[in-house]
Amino acid sequence: MTSELLIDRVRLTPVLIADPPLLNTQGVHQPYTPRLIVEIATRGGVTGVGETYGDSAYLGLARPLAEALPGHAVTDVNGLFRLADQLGAGPATVGEGRDEGVDAGGLRGVRTAAKLRLSVVSAFEVACLDALGRTLGLPVHALLGGKVRDTVDYSAYLFHRWAAHPAGGGKDDWGAALDPAGIVAQARRFTTAYGFRSFKLKGGVFEPDREIAAIRALADAFPGHPLRLDPNGAWSVETSVYVAEQLDGLLEYLEDPASGTDRMAEVAARTRVPLATNMCVTTFPEIPDAFARGAVRIVLSDHHYWGGLHRTRELAAVCRTFGIGLSMHSNTHLGISLAAMTHVAATVPDLDHACDTHYPWQTEDVLTRRHVFRAGRLAVSDAPGLGVALDRERLAVLHRRWLDDDGSMRERDDAAAMRRADPRWVTPAVPRW
Amino acid sequence: MTSELLIDRVRLTPVLIADPPLLNTQGVHQPYTPRLIVEIATRGGVTGVGETYGDSAYLGLARPLAEALPGHAVTDVNGLFRLADQLGAGPATVGEGRDEGVDAGGLRGVRTAAKLRLSVVSAFEVACLDALGRTLGLPVHALLGGKVRDTVDYSAYLFHRWAAHPAGGGKDDWGAALDPAGIVAQARRFTTAYGFRSFKLKGGVFEPDREIAAIRALADAFPGHPLRLDPNGAWSVETSVYVAEQLDGLLEYLEDPASGTDRMAEVAARTRVPLATNMCVTTFPEIPDAFARGAVRIVLSDHHYWGGLHRTRELAAVCRTFGIGLSMHSNTHLGISLAAMTHVAATVPDLDHACDTHYPWQTEDVLTRRHVFRAGRLAVSDAPGLGVALDRERLAVLHRRWLDDDGSMRERDDAAAMRRADPRWVTPAVPRW
Ligand SMILES: [Mg+2]
Ligand SMILES: [Mg+2]
Repeated sequence: MTSELLIDRVRLTPVLIADPPLLNTQGVHQPYTPRLIVEIATRGGVTGVGETYGDSAYLGLARPLAEALPGHAVTDVNGLFRLADQLGAGPATVGEGRDEGVDAGGLRGVRTAAKLRLSVVSAFEVACLDALGRTLGLPVHALLGGKVRDTVDYSAYLFHRWAAHPAGGGKDDWGAALDPAGIVAQARRFTTAYGFRSFKLKGGVFEPDREIAAIRALADAFPGHPLRLDPNGAWSVETSVYVAEQLDGLLEYLEDPASGTDRMAEVAARTRVPLATNMCVTTFPEIPDAFARGAVRIVLSDHHYWGGLHRTRELAAVCRTFGIGLSMHSNTHLGISLAAMTHVAATVPDLDHACDTHYPWQTEDVLTRRHVFRAGRLAVSDAPGLGVALDRERLAVLHRRWLDDDGSMRERDDAAAMRRADPRWVTPAVPRW
Repeated sequence: MTSELLIDRVRLTPVLIADPPLLNTQGVHQPYTPRLIVEIATRGGVTGVGETYGDSAYLGLARPLAEALPGHAVTDVNGLFRLADQLGAGPATVGEGRDEGVDAGGLRGVRTAAKLRLSVVSAFEVACLDALGRTLGLPVHALLGGKVRDTVDYSAYLFHRWAAHPAGGGKDDWGAALDPAGIVAQARRFTTAYGFRSFKLKGGVFEPDREIAAIRALADAFPGHPLRLDPNGAWSVETSVYVAEQLDGLLEYLEDPASGTDRMAEVAARTRVPLATNMCVTTFPEIPDAFARGAVRIVLSDHHYWGGLHRTRELAAVCRTFGIGLSMHSNTHLGISLAAMTHVAATVPDLDHACDTHYPWQTEDVLTRRHVFRAGRLAVSDAPGLGVALDRERLAVLHRRWLDDDGSMRERDDAAAMRRADPRWVTPAVPRW
């Protein structure tokens, strides 16, 4: 192996990116959300990029990994896990409560040190694959065994939302969406602008009947289009079963109606609506129990949680083996991660559902060219690596924002953001309804 | 992607290779066993090699695949499966009886058309990876995410055997081994010549007490060395439990004592000796039932069965997820497959048992240089591709043998070989004891 594939240096750039006031059961997105950009430069003079969560706990793990990497080969992505384990020795579980700042109120599922490490490793793995692909002249999908499709389907991610952040911050022109009519209008704009066919509604914000009404309104407005509802585990078993009954026949799947494998298994046993999750199955150790109990029919993969693109393909193999469907989860992310999602999705034959993405809500990016959805799809790039290019000026601007922040935005905290509007707001106990 | 990675032509070369008179529960190895060598040449002028079973059913599937491949890229290994599925449309199950010629009396586990296709695809996948690695200057392990170890442990594969084939054929100087003393002597020679630490005894040949005695003799002669016994499913549940009781504490694992997941699960429930298999779990669809019922604690992967090196890594991920151990199965094979086994084994962190290999029994190879075991290990090659080179003269000689064969050796058939010594021999019914 030539020395051109050895890592010369790693650069970590935390940024704050504008985020609209999207509502979920924990609160509301802050005006800015932290992301971490990872650049890995080889001795051959090629730089690969990756992206992950930017909260301080992730940054804290990324720094020693970045320091340890020079001299390793970008081909050595299997070795990243052991390296991260060695560096990241610590408690098996990060935090017991809700307020340890690593997680947006539990929306990212179980919180363990191992999972945190995987989320960090994922950005390094993607950056290594990008650098390797650029060096070899091969797209990332080819490094994963090759694409099996030329485009990847995405779904429109609908949110109840305000027109503006309560205490200022970036503003967009989408306006408020706080009732079924607002959600349908939002869906129409998504369809017109991007051609999405599948619609996912973030639920758990209002009382379940109001969200049932929103799904019915979508079904009326877009007959035959796949619909999903995701209250992030806000409901009791009884409420989940009630909603499933009300929406039976209208939903492609119901996502995390209740919290945890126990409740999900109980709901699953009482409805024929398929249940999906990115909360009760977010790590390999959670799989055996959830699968054995029939808690979910679809797992929403997320290459950040699961430890990168190779691990996402492994998750796909596990799901395939057990007859469990696969779809793809999204958190607020930039175009680097969207490119990574698209490459890995292109290589998985049985990714039979459109992938989620927040990307249309992100008006800012660190790329020279934004991804463009056509007919609800992204074309799979055949350019070397991920096929994206960093815009260093934009990166510097967004990093400057992170540097200048007083600390209030450096941890994503949807409850804190909600308190700007309602000082008495506390993260709702689960089940909320 | 440059055109140098496009497949220009594919060459299939069936060969017959010398095999000693090794005994198993179905009969005895024939003097020659068929293997198929796959060569994939790119437009860039690079040739990659792969190897799989050479029986006519495999050849029959390999030919249309070889014809369809020119113009595809060697990076496109995910696409091989769909291509093979399209070309190989046919019955879901090949043969119901024992004599359809595809399988050495069931020693390779379940017989389905899908599995047959995977065994064929595996050789093409390995050849593609070899060609890709040679083109890029990268070892195959680097194309699988990188090695996590520099050497791979192998075990000595002990057989009850005759000194010579009853009806002539290649002869070696190992002599007969038909009792515990003979097995211990064989083990000593293996240890002296190759440094193996783990010993696997092929069982199911003699009455169980005689094989128990052989394991005890090995345990006495090699205290502390990992020992395995594999009767290929020849025993009843009661016999399996009896053997397990007799050898409790002496075995690393007991391999396929009884046939099928039902019996294996029953045995597993009645012994604390770990059970391993390369017979009741040889395809992904067999996994959920076997795992749910605790039928096995260790799966012996085989990149031929499972569809190549990427799929072997996926199997490893499935096993890891469910807390099932991984080891590696071997059938009579040449140095190409041994190289492929070593590359993939090097990338799997939790391959915690020494891999099986028949290689020391194979006096013939198609490589310019034989693999050399030192301290029971093979060094993982960092040369481009698999790191092996075809010896075209040897290949021509072994192919000539296949061409000249009257048909009696072109299908591996251990029962037919046994009938040369005992004309009344029929494949024993299971359970045999
Ligand atoms: Mg979700
Ligand atoms: Mg076996």
